[in-house]
Amino acid sequence: MSVKKIINDPKRVVDESVAGFGLAHADLVRVELDPIHVVRADAPIAGKVGIVSGGGSGHEPLHAGYVGFGMLDAAVPGAVFTSPTPDPILAATKAVDSGSGVLHIVKNYTGDVLNFETAADLAAADGIDVRSVIINDDVAVKDSLYTAGRRGVAGTVLVEKIAGAAAERGNSLDEVADVAERVNANARSMGLALTPCVVPHAGEPSFTLAEDEIEIGIGIHGEPGRERIGLEPADRLVDRLLAPILEDLPYERGERALLFVNGMGGTPQVELYVAYRRAAEVLEEHGIEITRSLVGNYITALEMQGMSITLLKLDDEMVELWDAPVQTAALRWGR
Amino acid sequence: MSVKKIINDPKRVVDESVAGFGLAHADLVRVELDPIHVVRADAPIAGKVGIVSGGGSGHEPLHAGYVGFGMLDAAVPGAVFTSPTPDPILAATKAVDSGSGVLHIVKNYTGDVLNFETAADLAAADGIDVRSVIINDDVAVKDSLYTAGRRGVAGTVLVEKIAGAAAERGNSLDEVADVAERVNANARSMGLALTPCVVPHAGEPSFTLAEDEIEIGIGIHGEPGRERIGLEPADRLVDRLLAPILEDLPYERGERALLFVNGMGGTPQVELYVAYRRAAEVLEEHGIEITRSLVGNYITALEMQGMSITLLKLDDEMVELWDAPVQTAALRWGR
Repeated sequence: MSVKKIINDPKRVVDESVAGFGLAHADLVRVELDPIHVVRADAPIAGKVGIVSGGGSGHEPLHAGYVGFGMLDAAVPGAVFTSPTPDPILAATKAVDSGSGVLHIVKNYTGDVLNFETAADLAAADGIDVRSVIINDDVAVKDSLYTAGRRGVAGTVLVEKIAGAAAERGNSLDEVADVAERVNANARSMGLALTPCVVPHAGEPSFTLAEDEIEIGIGIHGEPGRERIGLEPADRLVDRLLAPILEDLPYERGERALLFVNGMGGTPQVELYVAYRRAAEVLEEHGIEITRSLVGNYITALEMQGMSITLLKLDDEMVELWDAPVQTAALRWGR
Repeated sequence: MSVKKIINDPKRVVDESVAGFGLAHADLVRVELDPIHVVRADAPIAGKVGIVSGGGSGHEPLHAGYVGFGMLDAAVPGAVFTSPTPDPILAATKAVDSGSGVLHIVKNYTGDVLNFETAADLAAADGIDVRSVIINDDVAVKDSLYTAGRRGVAGTVLVEKIAGAAAERGNSLDEVADVAERVNANARSMGLALTPCVVPHAGEPSFTLAEDEIEIGIGIHGEPGRERIGLEPADRLVDRLLAPILEDLPYERGERALLFVNGMGGTPQVELYVAYRRAAEVLEEHGIEITRSLVGNYITALEMQGMSITLLKLDDEMVELWDAPVQTAALRWGR
């Protein structure tokens, strides 16, 4: 053992973790290890559009934590911070298709986009109707280390919840894809990191930050953001995240938003709520009505300390779908 | 700013965080800041026993995250890692008493026990029927830096859920206290830490661990445990936590348990599920039936990396109460 983590063989972390996830949540999911994917226990569900998401591991509870009633039908975990290959994506797609078609929710990283596309082509060749929605809610940078265009970050959680509810109530593939697109189009996110994280098989931090440095605009793999700054009070940090979000998608006074303060994995909740308080204050100054909120570690970068803020401009249908019952390992209410 | 955290004034962290919590969860709770306590939005509830818990902050979501339908009626947060004074405990007790009495759920730390006792005496003088249950599920050490007897750790979450359900269904104060005692008597926990944590107003780690050291039997404030060891694979670490738990409260083959793998705040979920997998394997070897499980960061020590394992020996009533609907910020299902 050379890396200080609760793991066995670094090469088997994802397999063992997904196996443990399957044991802990056997009421919600079943787990296949070859090729690896996590499927809702009662899939495929007759007459229901299937929803599949996936991506590199290390962002838990994304995506497996969102498999269940009212959200995803399957999740495909790649190696840590590495896109899954087309093979398990195809297997997951087949496992959840009931003949009503399958939506792929894909974060905008080059590898994810390519591999989901290949899997979608193969599924189509098998007669499965597939649509894909690419999530690109991160306003921090135009292009990044792993992306052409904007990265897909915390907005993904909101898309999965809302599209999941649309599928659960029996909407068609086109309708589910359309609402997913609309959520993505109305979501804006930006993050920051106080510390890096260590990928198990790498054994050392993916980047370094001095004791007095914060990275603004970080991605969920520690890829660089906009700038490095010195230490600042929480309120100032929140302002730095919210300003580009509100600049990119302005709000009229009285418009409604969902405010999502997300922890990067290693940040205590006590800090996330300090940030929430300031964000609520700023949005109130702008006349934005926060009608829904989410606070916690929902899309992470292993043990990275940091946070992101996501603002989703809500319409009536989104609110209704947000409030719909959901029953997954990481998000559940109202059933 | 000298400490790398998402905070403003270190002395105002708890106030600002609790204020943010109140804004984010206004549907579930109301927040009083002077003296500080978090109360279920619809308290006091006629005919229902009130349940109050509390303790030092820094263990979130414990306790405020568990205020709501089917769990706590109020939470009293002290300063970080510092017991709340009797004053807010008394205020919370009064706020939730409907005339049916109030249960105090108290983790066994000297300050908490004394201050809850004082508040209970003051409440009794005001004519409120109070019973107290002291949680002491930690098998690691007999006495510790802050405790005479065993410490109260992750078992507290299970007591709060199960006693909360008993109160919600209308049980009497004695019945609710009795089931809380029974859960405590049947819960055993032990934890470990890979890293220390930094208390905001202290600004430096409460202890140090070398790059190749793990502390076994750690408390939730970083107080010392049983021993320091070198790095080991996850499976071996799990075995080290489970052995004293099973030695302290042996199981007959076929007995049922709730397996709770808890993160200390900074440990990624991917690692917690690796640990869960091994724990399930060991319990299966012992013929113990895991009929319920909980995995995640439910009682933490700020950003500490580490975990604890709790095993609760279940009876039929506990299972029924565990499964009952709950609607709080941090734990919710089935309503």
